[in-house]
Amino acid sequence: MTRIAFGIEYDGTGFLGWQSQLQQPTLQDTVGAALSFVADAPVTLVCSGRTDTGVHARCQVVHFDTQAQRTERAWVLGTNTRLPGSVCLRWARVVADDFHARYSARERRYRYRIVNRPVRLALDARMATWERVALDVDAMQEACNALVGTHDFSSFRTSACQARSPVRHVSALAWRRRGEEVTLRISGNGFLHHMVRNIVGSALRVGRGEAPVEWLAELLASRDRPRAGPTAPPTGLVFEGPRYERCHGLPAEVTLA
Amino acid sequence: MTRIAFGIEYDGTGFLGWQSQLQQPTLQDTVGAALSFVADAPVTLVCSGRTDTGVHARCQVVHFDTQAQRTERAWVLGTNTRLPGSVCLRWARVVADDFHARYSARERRYRYRIVNRPVRLALDARMATWERVALDVDAMQEACNALVGTHDFSSFRTSACQARSPVRHVSALAWRRRGEEVTLRISGNGFLHHMVRNIVGSALRVGRGEAPVEWLAELLASRDRPRAGPTAPPTGLVFEGPRYERCHGLPAEVTLA
Repeated sequence: MTRIAFGIEYDGTGFLGWQSQLQQPTLQDTVGAALSFVADAPVTLVCSGRTDTGVHARCQVVHFDTQAQRTERAWVLGTNTRLPGSVCLRWARVVADDFHARYSARERRYRYRIVNRPVRLALDARMATWERVALDVDAMQEACNALVGTHDFSSFRTSACQARSPVRHVSALAWRRRGEEVTLRISGNGFLHHMVRNIVGSALRVGRGEAPVEWLAELLASRDRPRAGPTAPPTGLVFEGPRYERCHGLPAEVTLA
Repeated sequence: MTRIAFGIEYDGTGFLGWQSQLQQPTLQDTVGAALSFVADAPVTLVCSGRTDTGVHARCQVVHFDTQAQRTERAWVLGTNTRLPGSVCLRWARVVADDFHARYSARERRYRYRIVNRPVRLALDARMATWERVALDVDAMQEACNALVGTHDFSSFRTSACQARSPVRHVSALAWRRRGEEVTLRISGNGFLHHMVRNIVGSALRVGRGEAPVEWLAELLASRDRPRAGPTAPPTGLVFEGPRYERCHGLPAEVTLA
């Protein structure tokens, strides 16, 4: 039995999220079917972080165990010919049995992209979210600084969240404006269900001037989800990927510096 | 009669280029129909630079003459409600009668985006071109430096090109790598039919090591299209827009510095 890890990239537009369910298509079933074909046996995939309907991934990491003997190159090329154009394997690596795509991940990184202008989007409609009101990005950054560190993020989790603990560590959170583009990069040890999109939705309230800079700190302290801003749309969100310890021998893009 | 200029953004994926023709859909007909609805009369659109099938535009500029009296805001909002999600007006400006979207343009800017990696694309498949062979971007830049300036670009025009003269002035041409992203930014007074994509196709030969750095200079001097590289795919190409003199009072993004 060999354990193999994969880096997977996808445009989440046409998918009902990662997780297998009755309604289709999901990424887990789509990728699972392609890998099963190459493995010539059913496969069970474990991912580093589930993504919701419409959310994209630059490098989702997945592992599974198989008795099939294939080169890493054959796994990638063979599987990619069975996947739709909106999904591809970036790489495959044979890993030790103690590697686990979810539990071994030390960090997860997300990017949220907003196009901030008076008119709706065209060229970037699939990959960004539109915000009409001119945003004060400095205020958004100042407000969000309160979220960096280890906190109880109950105010930013959806009621459907299944995590046992609402405590997470956010290691970095940076808003940047470049012309009409406003981008959030956020990393941490893990994120609750909808946490990034709820942080964005609340930060947008501050950016629009609808709430003061101190509001995010108050919201965090209140642990009261109904007080937070609306969940920002999925189109702007990309799961950039997890990061693991060097000892696992994975590509640089998913390895801690 | 009032002359109005518009900035138009589009994802060219689903269109057979700008120019009206029997086969549909084209951008000229799509945008024309939406503007006619708002103007309540037929309109004739003049664009700053035609784009081919599948080519995108960040800010195509168009003008037309109308007797309709609308605010600039009404033109934009009204027209955008009649356009598909892949096309939008960025802005509208009333201009003087001597403004001409095509003849007044002093500069045109294009961007070509390549994702350079072993596996095919997923997340960026609509907005970039895939190149599998590791590219030597320094060699591509050195080769392309020969194209900067005023030259006869016959080697880089398609046989269908209708321009009277093959002479154009390329004012800037810069290749840049950032991780697996390789991007060309090119600007000049104008471009022949397929000229940018043929420059990219030929530069790719140099980047892959299939032709020496001096080859582009020789190709340019030969004025012999059949010797050039293949036309690079349209997905990676974005017409960033034209630039006009300040006197026309257009937005900064289409005005000379």
